[in-house]
Amino acid sequence: MDTGKARMALQLRSLVKKGGELEVSLVDVAIPAPGPDEVVIRVEGSPINPSDLGLLFGAADMSTARQSGTPGNPVVTATIPEGLMRSMAGRVDHSMPVGNEGAGEVVGAGSSNEAQALLGRTVAIFGGAMYSQYRCIKAAQCLSLPEGTTPAEGASCFVNPLTSLGMVETMRREGHTALVHTAAASNLGQMLNRICIADKVGLVNIVRTQQQEDLLRAIGATHVCNSSAPAFARDLTEALVATGATLAFDAIGGGTLAGRILACMEAALTRSSTEYTRYGSAIHKQVYIYGALDTGPTVVNRGFGFAWGIGGWLLWPFLQKIGPAAAQILRERVASELKTTFASHYTKEVSLAEALQLDEIAVYGRRATGEKYLINPNKGVAA
Amino acid sequence: MDTGKARMALQLRSLVKKGGELEVSLVDVAIPAPGPDEVVIRVEGSPINPSDLGLLFGAADMSTARQSGTPGNPVVTATIPEGLMRSMAGRVDHSMPVGNEGAGEVVGAGSSNEAQALLGRTVAIFGGAMYSQYRCIKAAQCLSLPEGTTPAEGASCFVNPLTSLGMVETMRREGHTALVHTAAASNLGQMLNRICIADKVGLVNIVRTQQQEDLLRAIGATHVCNSSAPAFARDLTEALVATGATLAFDAIGGGTLAGRILACMEAALTRSSTEYTRYGSAIHKQVYIYGALDTGPTVVNRGFGFAWGIGGWLLWPFLQKIGPAAAQILRERVASELKTTFASHYTKEVSLAEALQLDEIAVYGRRATGEKYLINPNKGVAA
Repeated sequence: MDTGKARMALQLRSLVKKGGELEVSLVDVAIPAPGPDEVVIRVEGSPINPSDLGLLFGAADMSTARQSGTPGNPVVTATIPEGLMRSMAGRVDHSMPVGNEGAGEVVGAGSSNEAQALLGRTVAIFGGAMYSQYRCIKAAQCLSLPEGTTPAEGASCFVNPLTSLGMVETMRREGHTALVHTAAASNLGQMLNRICIADKVGLVNIVRTQQQEDLLRAIGATHVCNSSAPAFARDLTEALVATGATLAFDAIGGGTLAGRILACMEAALTRSSTEYTRYGSAIHKQVYIYGALDTGPTVVNRGFGFAWGIGGWLLWPFLQKIGPAAAQILRERVASELKTTFASHYTKEVSLAEALQLDEIAVYGRRATGEKYLINPNKGVAA
Repeated sequence: MDTGKARMALQLRSLVKKGGELEVSLVDVAIPAPGPDEVVIRVEGSPINPSDLGLLFGAADMSTARQSGTPGNPVVTATIPEGLMRSMAGRVDHSMPVGNEGAGEVVGAGSSNEAQALLGRTVAIFGGAMYSQYRCIKAAQCLSLPEGTTPAEGASCFVNPLTSLGMVETMRREGHTALVHTAAASNLGQMLNRICIADKVGLVNIVRTQQQEDLLRAIGATHVCNSSAPAFARDLTEALVATGATLAFDAIGGGTLAGRILACMEAALTRSSTEYTRYGSAIHKQVYIYGALDTGPTVVNRGFGFAWGIGGWLLWPFLQKIGPAAAQILRERVASELKTTFASHYTKEVSLAEALQLDEIAVYGRRATGEKYLINPNKGVAA
C-alpha cells in the first residue's frame, strides 16, 4: 500500500469523433498520488446503469458496432447517424471516462486523519470515471461500507437506492399518497417494492411480460399490471382506484404509456362522479419521466382534463432541492439496508476488456429490464 | 322593471343523446323572480370562447351537422363518433345551458340594498348559461362596469383578461422572467401583448401566418415567430436568447409545437455552454397547455434533458390557488383597463337563432385565431 507515487491504471474511454464515429477503448492513465485529503481506490465493482449507457455509446447506432484492436485491448467503433451529431456537439473530440458509481478497497491514502482512517476499508463512491482499475478521490466522497460488505454488494449504493427513495420522498413532498412505476421489474423497481412494503405505501407496478409480473408477485408486490395484456387499461384503473395513486415514475419515456397512465388515473378519479365536469377532475395527476428506455417521442392523447403534468425527473437536482440534511437521511438508510432493501442483482460480472466484446454489448446494451452487468475493472488481476 | 314575477327567456341548450347524437336548440325557460340578494340581467353580449365550444358541440363531428326546426327556432344535430361517446358519459341526456361569461343590463333586483344598487346598471358576470335572454344571479357575482361601458365592451371581462393576467402572474410566482405564447394573435394574445408592454415583461409570440405576425407587430410586439416559416426554430431560439423566456403557454395542445418550444429553450440555454452536459441544462423549462385548438395527441421529441415539464393550466384552479385577495387585484385591473388593455374585438354579433345557422357554425366553430363571435341573445328584440 504505497501512497507516495502515481500508478498506472486501465480506464475505459468513450470518444465521439467529428467525423461521426464513436470509439470506445481502454487507455492507460496515470492515477495521481493522493493529496492529503484524498484516497486511491482499487475499483472492483461498477454497474452498467442505463444512465451510464447514454455516455458510453452516445447517439451511436450500435447495430453498426465493429471491433478491432487486440483481445486484451479491444476497440469498439460505431457510426453516429448524421442527424444525431448535433446532440453530441458538446463532447466531440473529448475522450470521456465513464462509470457513475462503484465500490472497491482503499489502497492508498493521503496524510489527513480522514483519509488514513479509510485505508483498507471497502468504500462506495459516486464520482464518475469508475470504469477504471484505480480511482483517486476525496475521502469525504467515500461511503464507508459496513464490515463484511463486498465491492459487488456495494457497487450500486447511489443511483438506484437514492432514486427509489427519492421517488417515495417526492410522492410525500408533492402531496400524493401512492405511486405508479413502469419497467417495474428492474433492480430499481424491486428496491422500490421493498421500500413501499416497508413504508406501507401503495405501489402499482407496470411491467411488459408475464415473467416480470411473476417476479414482482414473488417478492410481495400487490398490484402488478402487464401493459401487453388486453385488459391493461381496466387492470390499471382498478389498481389506481385501490391505491389512490396520482403520481407515476416512468423509466420508458417514449410512446403512449405516460399518457395512458394519466387517462387511467382520470378514469379512477371520476368513476364515482355523477356530474359532468367538462374540464375533468380537479385533482392533479403527474407522470415524471426519469429514463429513456424508449428514446422515441412521448405521445400524449390528452383526454384527462387540465389537472395534469408530465416532466423530467433526475436524482441529483432532486437531492439538491431537498438539501444536504434530508439527502443524508436517505444515504444513511441505504448504508444500513444495503444487503436487504437495496440489494442489487447482476446478470454477469465482466472485466473492462470483456465489456467491450460485441456479444456482451448486444446483451447489456439493449437495456432489458432485469439484465444488469457489473464491471469489475480488476477481474482476474491479482490484488 | 318589474321584480315580482318570473319571466320567460329563450335559452340555448346542448344535449348529447345516448344514441350518439348531439342536439343544439333553443328552449323557453322560466327565469325565476330574483331572491332578496339576486338580480335579473337582460343579457346583451356573450362571447363564443374556445372554452364554450367544448360544451356547445361536445365531441360531435361538426362536418356531419344538419339543421332542422324553423328559421326562428332552428335545431342543429350532429353525429358523435362512437369512440368518443365515452368521454361524453357524464352529460348524456342532460340538456345543458352554455355560455361562460357575458354582460347586460340589470332589469330586476331583489330587496337587498346590494341588489337594488345594481338596478339599471350594466354588469358583467361569469356564471354559465349566458346564451340566454335573461339570467338570474347573485348580486355579489356581478362586476359593475364603469359608466359608459356597453354590454359588448363588457362581455369578455373574465375569461381572456384573467387568463392573460394569470399567465404573467404564474410566470412571476414560478420564478420565470419572460413568456412564450402560441396562437398569439388571438384576442387573448393581443391582451397579453398589451400587459407585457405595460409591465415590461419579455414576450415571444408564436403565430402561424404572416398576417398574424403583421397584426402583432402593428400593436407593438417585439418578438413574433411564424411557426410555418422555414427559419422558425432559429428565429424562436434567437427570441428566447433575447428574452430569457423559460415558460410557455400553449393554446394549441396537439402536435409537436410544445416539444419544439422546449427544444429551442434548451438550445438557447446551452448555446453559450462549452461543457458537454449529458442530462441537459439544469434550468427548468415549462410549457402549460391551456387550450386544445388541436385536439390531436401532443407529440414530444424529448431532446432537452430532464429539467422540463408539460402540463395543463386552467384559470379557475389558478385563481383558487392564489386566493381571493390576489384574484381581486387582477379583477380590479380588468375593470379599470377594460377599454384599453382588455378590449376585445368581435368578427360578428349574432342572435341566438343566428348562432345556430350552419354557415355561422362553420366560421366560429373552426376556432380560427382572431375570428371571434359575440352572441347577443336580445339582438333585434326591443328592450
